[in-house]
Amino acid sequence: MKDTVSHCPVENAMLVLAGRWRILLIYYLLEGTKRFSDLRRDMPKISQRMLTLDLRALEAAGYVRRTVYPEVPVRVEYSLTEEGQHLRSLVDVLGECGERLTRHRDAKA
Amino acid sequence: MKDTVSHCPVENAMLVLAGRWRILLIYYLLEGTKRFSDLRRDMPKISQRMLTLDLRALEAAGYVRRTVYPEVPVRVEYSLTEEGQHLRSLVDVLGECGERLTRHRDAKA
Repeated sequence: MKDTVSHCPVENAMLVLAGRWRILLIYYLLEGTKRFSDLRRDMPKISQRMLTLDLRALEAAGYVRRTVYPEVPVRVEYSLTEEGQHLRSLVDVLGECGERLTRHRDAKA
Repeated sequence: MKDTVSHCPVENAMLVLAGRWRILLIYYLLEGTKRFSDLRRDMPKISQRMLTLDLRALEAAGYVRRTVYPEVPVRVEYSLTEEGQHLRSLVDVLGECGERLTRHRDAKA
C-alpha cells in the first residue's frame, strides 16, 4: 500500500489500519502478548504470509512490539506498544458497529 | 471479499468497512449528500471502478442510500442512512488515531 501521507487524519489512519486483518490483530493483541502461532489460532482464515506482512506493518507504524528471545529454538513474541494500546477505543467502537450491523441484518432477514 | 459472518463483531465490521477507502467515503458523506463526481473530487486517488464497488457495498450494508432522480440527464445522489450516521463515532476515533500517528511519526523523524 503506497504510503503517501495525506492532509486527512482519517486517510492517514486507514493507510496503516486498512485491510481486513490489521485492526483484528490489534483486537487480539489487546488480550496480551502473543506468539505467531497464537495469532494464527485466533485468526484461522488469515494466511501465514498476510499475518507476517500485517505484523511488520503494525510494527513499522509503532503499534506492535516484536521481542526475540535468543533461546533454542528462538522464541518470538508480539505485544502492543503504548501507541497500540491507544487503539482500544477504535476496536471498541468497531465492535459496536459490528453488533449494530448484525442486528440490522437480522432485522432485515 | 467473502462475506462469511463470524462470531466476532469486530471482524464482522471489518468485513464491510475494511479496504482503504470505505471509511473515508463515510467521512466525506458525513458532510452531506454528494454526487459521484463530488466524491471523486474529494478522493482523487480512488479509481472510478473502486468508488462504484465501495458505494455499492456500503449501500448493501445499509450505510449509504442511493437516490436516482428521473431527470434528463438522470441525477444520482448518495447520502448516509441512519445506520451510516452512526459511523460518525468510528470516523472521529480514526481521526484521532491518524493525528496520533502523525505526531508519533514527526517525533521519530
